[in-house]
Amino acid sequence: MQRIGVLTGGGDCPGLNCVIRAITKTVMTEYGATVVGVEDGFEGLVDGRMRELGNSDVSGIISLGGTILGTSNKGDPWHFPVTGADQSVTITDASAQAMAHYRQWELDCLVAVGGDGTMNIAGKLAGLGANLVGVPKTIDNDLAATDLTFGHETAVAVATEAIDRLHTTASSHHRVMVIEVMGRYAGWIALRAGLGGGADIILIPEIPFTWEGVFRKVLSRSRHGKRFSIVCVAEGAKLPEGGEVVKAYDSKRTDAKQLGGVGAFVAQRITEGTGLETRVTVLGHLLRGGSPVPSDRVLATRFGVLAGHLAAQRRYGLMAALHGSRVEPVPIKDAIAGLKLVTRDDELVQVAKSVGTSFGEV
Amino acid sequence: MQRIGVLTGGGDCPGLNCVIRAITKTVMTEYGATVVGVEDGFEGLVDGRMRELGNSDVSGIISLGGTILGTSNKGDPWHFPVTGADQSVTITDASAQAMAHYRQWELDCLVAVGGDGTMNIAGKLAGLGANLVGVPKTIDNDLAATDLTFGHETAVAVATEAIDRLHTTASSHHRVMVIEVMGRYAGWIALRAGLGGGADIILIPEIPFTWEGVFRKVLSRSRHGKRFSIVCVAEGAKLPEGGEVVKAYDSKRTDAKQLGGVGAFVAQRITEGTGLETRVTVLGHLLRGGSPVPSDRVLATRFGVLAGHLAAQRRYGLMAALHGSRVEPVPIKDAIAGLKLVTRDDELVQVAKSVGTSFGEV
Amino acid sequence: MQRIGVLTGGGDCPGLNCVIRAITKTVMTEYGATVVGVEDGFEGLVDGRMRELGNSDVSGIISLGGTILGTSNKGDPWHFPVTGADQSVTITDASAQAMAHYRQWELDCLVAVGGDGTMNIAGKLAGLGANLVGVPKTIDNDLAATDLTFGHETAVAVATEAIDRLHTTASSHHRVMVIEVMGRYAGWIALRAGLGGGADIILIPEIPFTWEGVFRKVLSRSRHGKRFSIVCVAEGAKLPEGGEVVKAYDSKRTDAKQLGGVGAFVAQRITEGTGLETRVTVLGHLLRGGSPVPSDRVLATRFGVLAGHLAAQRRYGLMAALHGSRVEPVPIKDAIAGLKLVTRDDELVQVAKSVGTSFGEV
Amino acid sequence: MQRIGVLTGGGDCPGLNCVIRAITKTVMTEYGATVVGVEDGFEGLVDGRMRELGNSDVSGIISLGGTILGTSNKGDPWHFPVTGADQSVTITDASAQAMAHYRQWELDCLVAVGGDGTMNIAGKLAGLGANLVGVPKTIDNDLAATDLTFGHETAVAVATEAIDRLHTTASSHHRVMVIEVMGRYAGWIALRAGLGGGADIILIPEIPFTWEGVFRKVLSRSRHGKRFSIVCVAEGAKLPEGGEVVKAYDSKRTDAKQLGGVGAFVAQRITEGTGLETRVTVLGHLLRGGSPVPSDRVLATRFGVLAGHLAAQRRYGLMAALHGSRVEPVPIKDAIAGLKLVTRDDELVQVAKSVGTSFGEV
Repeated sequence: MQRIGVLTGGGDCPGLNCVIRAITKTVMTEYGATVVGVEDGFEGLVDGRMRELGNSDVSGIISLGGTILGTSNKGDPWHFPVTGADQSVTITDASAQAMAHYRQWELDCLVAVGGDGTMNIAGKLAGLGANLVGVPKTIDNDLAATDLTFGHETAVAVATEAIDRLHTTASSHHRVMVIEVMGRYAGWIALRAGLGGGADIILIPEIPFTWEGVFRKVLSRSRHGKRFSIVCVAEGAKLPEGGEVVKAYDSKRTDAKQLGGVGAFVAQRITEGTGLETRVTVLGHLLRGGSPVPSDRVLATRFGVLAGHLAAQRRYGLMAALHGSRVEPVPIKDAIAGLKLVTRDDELVQVAKSVGTSFGEV
Repeated sequence: MQRIGVLTGGGDCPGLNCVIRAITKTVMTEYGATVVGVEDGFEGLVDGRMRELGNSDVSGIISLGGTILGTSNKGDPWHFPVTGADQSVTITDASAQAMAHYRQWELDCLVAVGGDGTMNIAGKLAGLGANLVGVPKTIDNDLAATDLTFGHETAVAVATEAIDRLHTTASSHHRVMVIEVMGRYAGWIALRAGLGGGADIILIPEIPFTWEGVFRKVLSRSRHGKRFSIVCVAEGAKLPEGGEVVKAYDSKRTDAKQLGGVGAFVAQRITEGTGLETRVTVLGHLLRGGSPVPSDRVLATRFGVLAGHLAAQRRYGLMAALHGSRVEPVPIKDAIAGLKLVTRDDELVQVAKSVGTSFGEV
Repeated sequence: MQRIGVLTGGGDCPGLNCVIRAITKTVMTEYGATVVGVEDGFEGLVDGRMRELGNSDVSGIISLGGTILGTSNKGDPWHFPVTGADQSVTITDASAQAMAHYRQWELDCLVAVGGDGTMNIAGKLAGLGANLVGVPKTIDNDLAATDLTFGHETAVAVATEAIDRLHTTASSHHRVMVIEVMGRYAGWIALRAGLGGGADIILIPEIPFTWEGVFRKVLSRSRHGKRFSIVCVAEGAKLPEGGEVVKAYDSKRTDAKQLGGVGAFVAQRITEGTGLETRVTVLGHLLRGGSPVPSDRVLATRFGVLAGHLAAQRRYGLMAALHGSRVEPVPIKDAIAGLKLVTRDDELVQVAKSVGTSFGEV
Repeated sequence: MQRIGVLTGGGDCPGLNCVIRAITKTVMTEYGATVVGVEDGFEGLVDGRMRELGNSDVSGIISLGGTILGTSNKGDPWHFPVTGADQSVTITDASAQAMAHYRQWELDCLVAVGGDGTMNIAGKLAGLGANLVGVPKTIDNDLAATDLTFGHETAVAVATEAIDRLHTTASSHHRVMVIEVMGRYAGWIALRAGLGGGADIILIPEIPFTWEGVFRKVLSRSRHGKRFSIVCVAEGAKLPEGGEVVKAYDSKRTDAKQLGGVGAFVAQRITEGTGLETRVTVLGHLLRGGSPVPSDRVLATRFGVLAGHLAAQRRYGLMAALHGSRVEPVPIKDAIAGLKLVTRDDELVQVAKSVGTSFGEV
């Protein structure tokens, strides 16, 4: 009887529990295999925090946000933090310990659900003899190997609902509403939510904007009798003047030019540049939490089922991916090769422009 | 300056307003064309109930369910009902009248948003000299020409949320919950909502079920200590004994073997066959109403923008369709040729079975 | 150290987990008492299915629908069904067994969360020496002793959201939409949801309606150019012709005059009486499921905290109730004395009439 | 035939459209009066931007956020900004102009929907001969004259849903999540949302907190194996060190000690004081937007209906208020006398403490 491990790594993402459930049900029912859950990503593999999962563990979790296994973005076995008796932290190579637990639990294979960080570690563990199967996870949907990742549509839905709410209050006053969403490198969340929410201006990392472009759109709407404008900003949008705007609470970034986040900064500049009142909303981790929307549940379940089949059929080194309307395996190492960024000639950008949305360009 | 008409035909569908908005904004802004909205589908074309649409008509409607133009499924110009002075209804050929209004309003083209009924009429109007562009619309997502239609994901979302609610109350008692959703010929809504909601049994028109198969799944769960089962039934699911179950309120169907709808009938038979308590919920037109989910808004906007470009560029006889991740034009007449039904070897069916869902087969 | 039992009886109701959590946290933290959860209402007390509850059992359940303890409406210890070896069911008096488990688990007190059935049994157990504290529970909000019960607002919210959805699709067509909600004896859900959703007609058990009254309102709206009407019907609304309409799936009610439920029947009669198309939606147990709305969570928590204090302070025979904006104890036996029904001169009825809602009166 | 004016003043608030609809329907249907809507609060009265409202204006707006009349918080007729030809702004007394429009439109009475600012102006207009009726409006629910105001429950619901989302992602990582909600003087939103969402720490203006109290609670949870803490902060929470934290985008407040808002500041201090990772979410104007929850729609409709009756019956100088479960008139001038703040011995505060919530006290 095979023994198949599962872990979830990196940031939180709606749909992780659907994946865990799908893997568990598939390998238990169709192959009679045993599933071993690893807690808190690779951190739990190093620490040996693992447990067998049964039907009752995965029952009813399809609609649940978060991950029942926990996750961590600190658990790289090759750079593992160990706290000494004097509370000082030393970084050590704990990869042998991770492999020891892999062998002690007699795993035939480990299914790693995560982003590029997780997949890189997975690749290194494979080099030490572990068998790996992957499930891609990125709320930003910026992985070149798959058309879509689960969690993304949920994030877009939360952001769009927020824009809907801001619309009603914006249209009661004469105001500019700025909403900041996730997206450090890729602007897909801002683009889709801006398009679905009918934002007037969308600012994303991939398309440099100018203050003149932003002010002109806002003022042009005002002149045409529109009572308000909605600006949807990705947290990674690049300022015209260069430099970076970091969050007020990110106490380590003392070098940063401005505290408060890019949304607050954009709002401040619009007030200065147009004389209009502005308000800002920062969605932050709201986008990562809560129950996955149905399409994310279905996609996550499809990924999990395929990963379960791959693991049980010993087709290692592969990862689930969506191509068109098909879920297919791709090599893990290819998968993490390329980022999928928004381009100026992307159909969605063109569509947004056709309905009058500005990207703040001159 | 071109003049482009828009009408929405057939049943209601979340996203229609996104299409109307996208067409209007695209042809006004990018081509300087004038948009003429036709009220209540082809009925309004026959009656000449038409009006010019401006920016303020389509502002803020992206999140709005329904259609600002109204729709109708009675307006076939070739079989048009006319009510006489004595209240008697005569069916007449009003196609010439429809064409007269088309010409009187100096339309260069008419964009018809609708299902196969609407597209058939569009084809016949083209035969009389009208220029047509199409946008496909089916909440059931059963059109072969496009991978996805807008409105479908919203319907799936409403149904999934209902299943989520039933789960919590089902698990507090020992009960079988039956939920009936739309889908007269195609089971996509039941399949996706059942998969996303974690239904235990899914009954759809395309996969014949047996009472034994249904009872066995329910009883097997009960024996394994599960306190409940959720059964998701498409309204068009075919009974093992043949025949059809119609709604109690459908007073014209006196031939029908049983009143109350298929959901109520399935619930009754499960009670008889297993001795377990059952409850039924009939979602009915809830699936067609309300604000479209963001992914439907984005898809509907993409369809509308393409239709706007096609109309303004005089590329008539074409319809917007989604292939993979691209929105492309396809000939209208090809588009309505084939239905896309669920098949037993569809990946979604296989995935559902891998996570333990039964289709009531023996 | 005191030992305090908790059970949830009767139908499901959003907010039960908030009550369980509040009782547990209050008596553990403030009194150092132990909490014993009883499974499936009084059924679990007879069977001795009980377990100690700790902090981890009640952590994170505030937003969870249903009840982690399970419930049952079959567990009256004085009429307890016992299944024999031949599968025949005998009704026995199992009250001594219930008391034996009460004593075996060394309970100082039992907090019973439930409706009048549950409170009646609680009163009889008190007669055998058990100490009882009560928390009222009725989704219909029909208990005279308290201004409001938890779960009611959630049911109203689900029903209102459904009416919102029907509005958009109703207004796209010319149609009458009938929606059936819970309320066998009291019409509060239909009244509040109808008022909040802007229903045109509200039919409730307490206000007899006539078909003429219903038809007149529908036709009058139609004549004034309104494209649709929304009718919100409580399942217990009394037909003008007398008799009762039962659900199609309620197979035991062969005496009933009509299958399909009152909603379907009303829809059918409106079609016959006005010639307008009708559609029906039956919400059924959707109203009892899902996450409680915030105001229900707060009220349920307030009830649970007070019940915890009453139990730990040995103030037995009392029940939590809301009077104005205060939560106060009332004697259990008074509490179950009277039903709170809608009256014709209730402010809500008058308000509904002032905004144009009809109750189907002549 | 009487002519009754309606205006909405001050900040946006879900339920305003329910009030407008209820007043309009009540006075038109029951008294045959004419309703005149004033745009953008008192600004529109000064400018004479007014229009008659009919049935079609208020049809379908019950579920709509915002206000169809628009609002403004700049429109005090006694300090009215006038922009000169050189773009300079002069403050003038425009009260005579406001009264002139009141008389020109032949108003018998004006119904003012708003907060204390609006009611003060209303009182001054009454001094000039206008007849006034009031409907109280404060999303913070801090008016002593009424037990509850509409909009408040919607704000609590949005904040609670956000806390729910943060819970799932917080519990996947080891993290402290800080959420900042509205409430400059009164902490009711933070208190109710914190209670309903199960926040671990609630910081409000009325209860001074200490950093030690906050750190202790967070660290104590961490020691007991809890993976996360949720901190719900009202924007007006007072820092232990005195001073005020203002928003980063509030460019005029150069005197402020710290940019970024109180939520970001609290998060930063928790990171410094406990070494734990923190994340912050700022809900901002999300709380004021979107469709009102059903209980707010019902309350707003009750207020509007009473205001309509008062106006039509010439019972001037009165305002609708909720006392217990009754909606009653109170004198406007009494109504704006007192604020209703949270006190330490409020039942809700005691309940929150009983379920383990900390207010950051030592």
